[in-house]
Amino acid sequence: MSNALSQALKQIKPLDREAMQRARVRQDELTKPQGSLGRLEDLSIKIAGIKGKTVRGFEHKAIVTMAADHGVVTEGVTLYPQGVTRQMVFNFLSGGAGINVLARFIGARVVVVDMGVIGGFEPHPDIVCKMIDFGTKDMTKGSAMTRQQAVDAIDAGVEVVEAEIAKGLDIVGTGDMGIGNTTASSAICAAITGEAVEKVTGRGEGLDDKQVAHKVEVIQKALKLNKPDPRDPIDVLSKVGGFEIGGLVGVMIGAAARQIPVVIDGFISGAAALIATELAPGLKDYLIAAHLSAESGHRVLLEYLGLTPLLDLEMRLGEGTGAALGITIVEAAVKTLAEMATFAEAGVSQKEGSG
Amino acid sequence: MSNALSQALKQIKPLDREAMQRARVRQDELTKPQGSLGRLEDLSIKIAGIKGKTVRGFEHKAIVTMAADHGVVTEGVTLYPQGVTRQMVFNFLSGGAGINVLARFIGARVVVVDMGVIGGFEPHPDIVCKMIDFGTKDMTKGSAMTRQQAVDAIDAGVEVVEAEIAKGLDIVGTGDMGIGNTTASSAICAAITGEAVEKVTGRGEGLDDKQVAHKVEVIQKALKLNKPDPRDPIDVLSKVGGFEIGGLVGVMIGAAARQIPVVIDGFISGAAALIATELAPGLKDYLIAAHLSAESGHRVLLEYLGLTPLLDLEMRLGEGTGAALGITIVEAAVKTLAEMATFAEAGVSQKEGSG
Repeated sequence: MSNALSQALKQIKPLDREAMQRARVRQDELTKPQGSLGRLEDLSIKIAGIKGKTVRGFEHKAIVTMAADHGVVTEGVTLYPQGVTRQMVFNFLSGGAGINVLARFIGARVVVVDMGVIGGFEPHPDIVCKMIDFGTKDMTKGSAMTRQQAVDAIDAGVEVVEAEIAKGLDIVGTGDMGIGNTTASSAICAAITGEAVEKVTGRGEGLDDKQVAHKVEVIQKALKLNKPDPRDPIDVLSKVGGFEIGGLVGVMIGAAARQIPVVIDGFISGAAALIATELAPGLKDYLIAAHLSAESGHRVLLEYLGLTPLLDLEMRLGEGTGAALGITIVEAAVKTLAEMATFAEAGVSQKEGSG
Repeated sequence: MSNALSQALKQIKPLDREAMQRARVRQDELTKPQGSLGRLEDLSIKIAGIKGKTVRGFEHKAIVTMAADHGVVTEGVTLYPQGVTRQMVFNFLSGGAGINVLARFIGARVVVVDMGVIGGFEPHPDIVCKMIDFGTKDMTKGSAMTRQQAVDAIDAGVEVVEAEIAKGLDIVGTGDMGIGNTTASSAICAAITGEAVEKVTGRGEGLDDKQVAHKVEVIQKALKLNKPDPRDPIDVLSKVGGFEIGGLVGVMIGAAARQIPVVIDGFISGAAALIATELAPGLKDYLIAAHLSAESGHRVLLEYLGLTPLLDLEMRLGEGTGAALGITIVEAAVKTLAEMATFAEAGVSQKEGSG
């Protein structure tokens, strides 16, 4: 483990219980039946606990979308050619991808990070270059990356989020792009949760039953060969993970260390969250699960993490698209706490027998 | 039935299948695996069908929040005093209620309508006065309102939404305020769906088990006495409904007649949707269920309507708060269709074997 990483891990504090209690009391004084804003109330209280105070909204929002390629693609686990990872990064840059549209809609910036895309990129003002290598190795032939590369990827993620915090950051969403990365995520999920590979492996971009069965076999082969140690999350990341997944681990840890709430997207971000929370169990309090992905395995992973998703819209695009919608729900929650009038302020009667 | 109402009912057209087909084709050309935006894709296609074309967003959004009082409150079915209906209208006017906060957040205006609040209001530029009477009568003693009042309430709703369309309206959300109106809504729901009263009666603002049991008895008594005819939705509305519920029926019909999508809020809006869709079955295609309310009975009602809610955040505030969040999801959907690049535009490879 690097110094930067162990430093960040140490900085993750428990939530501020007093700020949460103040937020709870305030929620109960607002002009509505107690509890009637449901999960919005819980979210507003959680954000108060993360920030140590009640906030009025999120002026600075970012989705960090990390891209990398996966050697396992050579095993025929995907429908789209590997070159799509790089092509989609160009699509991010020109603003035409799903995440661009949804981030614009919620007023967030998209931070595009090259964690290891085959072909690489010329220096570009809108690409953060943290390239570890031109894609991982084929995990059915050996470790996807070296242990040092796994640590470097996490460190890079910490650096990325710290640079964004320097620019102004109140909440962050995580996103991914990488042809083949549901395969890596299923492998991580099986390794850490101990669930059967079949249970945590889905259709990715739209595999049919036979193709899914092949994907399961590929993952089983990789796990059998590499024997990732579930008690050592960096071992799991290095053996069956991906560079963008490692980067997202770093983003989560770096954000939590600086009291920034992290809205995690779908299955790939969830796999990163598995690694991140194994490294830092206290991190879990900083995570908000945006949505339940249509990718089977995501439900298993969220249950293991103890997170209940905000949305269930059958989305499975990745990129941070679910996180963008999740952030807007969290911001709505925060605004109700900040802006609603209390019974006393509005001169509204409380329920009989109370106040 | 009035002329205005029968006119509006005649204007509700089937969705534009060609526009929907064009939207479907376009969704499949966008830079993402087909179907990967899940329900956002379906929403964008539905909106195209309602509008007869693809739209770029919703410039003009409104939540119509209708308020009225309920005579049945004298039977002890609520926790808050009846005066809270009127007090909350003042809270809407000063911008301190949940719906004000969430409408501001999504960029919608709130249209506050007095459909029959006890005490009434001085003329006020921000209250649309459509007062039918100072609250309904106690439905356990007789009909809640006359048949003429029920028709007048629906007509008033049509007028309200037409006035908003004149100001500019691209999508509308429905909301309600009325102490006692979950009782009326449960009665409507039982009458129309034929389900047992126990199954469609919930805790309202927070009743305990004993109080819920009493509420069930009150509703059973009202249904037994009044015998609303499920084949005559205006009979149901007049016997066990409410003025704000009738107004919302009119809003739904008037909006659909003018090709405006209607995002319905929770249980009370759902009860209005039951009446409205019995009057005009084709209306259902114009409705979008924002969320699943924590009020039991809402699930029954949505299943009867064949609508799947977008959100499940355990909210039960009413006012249109769920509708506001729902509108933002619908707008996100519309924007993906309007703004995402196609594979051809972005130079991204399609999946192997296709395009």
